[in-house]
Amino acid sequence: MPRLVDHNERRRSIIETTWRIIAEQGIENASMRDIARECGYAAPGVLAHYFPNKDSLLLASYELICDRTNERVAAGTAGRRGLAALQGLCLEIIPANPLTVVEARVAVSFWQRAQTVPSLRAVGRQALIHWRDLMLDFLAQAEHDGECAPIADPDTVADELLNIMMGLHVTSMLDPDAVTGSRQRYLMERALGRLVPSKAKQTA
Amino acid sequence: MPRLVDHNERRRSIIETTWRIIAEQGIENASMRDIARECGYAAPGVLAHYFPNKDSLLLASYELICDRTNERVAAGTAGRRGLAALQGLCLEIIPANPLTVVEARVAVSFWQRAQTVPSLRAVGRQALIHWRDLMLDFLAQAEHDGECAPIADPDTVADELLNIMMGLHVTSMLDPDAVTGSRQRYLMERALGRLVPSKAKQTA
Repeated sequence: MPRLVDHNERRRSIIETTWRIIAEQGIENASMRDIARECGYAAPGVLAHYFPNKDSLLLASYELICDRTNERVAAGTAGRRGLAALQGLCLEIIPANPLTVVEARVAVSFWQRAQTVPSLRAVGRQALIHWRDLMLDFLAQAEHDGECAPIADPDTVADELLNIMMGLHVTSMLDPDAVTGSRQRYLMERALGRLVPSKAKQTA
Repeated sequence: MPRLVDHNERRRSIIETTWRIIAEQGIENASMRDIARECGYAAPGVLAHYFPNKDSLLLASYELICDRTNERVAAGTAGRRGLAALQGLCLEIIPANPLTVVEARVAVSFWQRAQTVPSLRAVGRQALIHWRDLMLDFLAQAEHDGECAPIADPDTVADELLNIMMGLHVTSMLDPDAVTGSRQRYLMERALGRLVPSKAKQTA
């Protein structure tokens, strides 16, 4: 049994190789043997010690994306609150830069498997709930600080933003030339702009 | 070579069996041999005569969904225009009833494969463009008929609706107890309600 630090480093290294494979060729085109070879293991048994199957690899990859997103959100919203923090959160989740594009590919692969694997679905659901809770906190701050008019139904505002962000994972993949990073940012900023009274009329 | 009508019927029957398999167990868990057996063919060769591989089956399944959606939209919007037609379109696309839930499962499977197969991606993109064009027509009618205030940026209104609808495919799958059919309809109606001047203030 390797030391704990090596174990974690190896896990991380395997996950990063898996990301690259997902982004380049799709996980369903790679066998565990292929992934082991890409990781530099001559035998798939070493890989299986860390991840017994593709679902466990996809789950770990997805969890790492969520962790990284949340770390970036924490860094990007440090010292901010309200609408600025909400904007920071949204811009870290949408696939509007090369890093988040790769993360979105892992997410789409993950969702496909989550359809038939309840344990994956539960993890995906938790990520949505976590982002939604953060959004509700930021919305409450925005209202408290007088940045926006009273929000009659913050749950629905958060749900709409969340659905736009998940939708952008799909539309930007199918039509990257139209749904560019700047187009995605524009759509999010327009949705957030509706919360600001002076902008509300222009952004119906 | 069978008669053309038999050929089309068989294709349709194979696609419907494939839908069921996707909805129940995910297409990646079924081999072409499994799918052939489910279709009642003793040998996979008969299936291969119609669909040489899973991608061609997924593509045909997705195309049939798009055709059916468009047929339902045409039926649901017959004699309607403007906001009523736009609402009819949106309610046929979101996975808010048992039929569209199964269609959404096929779509999510399709998207996953489309990430690495350009020909699938092109078909997915065409479906988005078609729905978007319909939305732009209905928005222009709504504006012409005075149902809504002048729409400064109809492209963006259509894009936002489209992303909410695609997002609902993901969130309703991950969290079906929260993102119910009625919740989805409420979110769409709220987004459409913003277009109506008298409702705009309440639905920021």
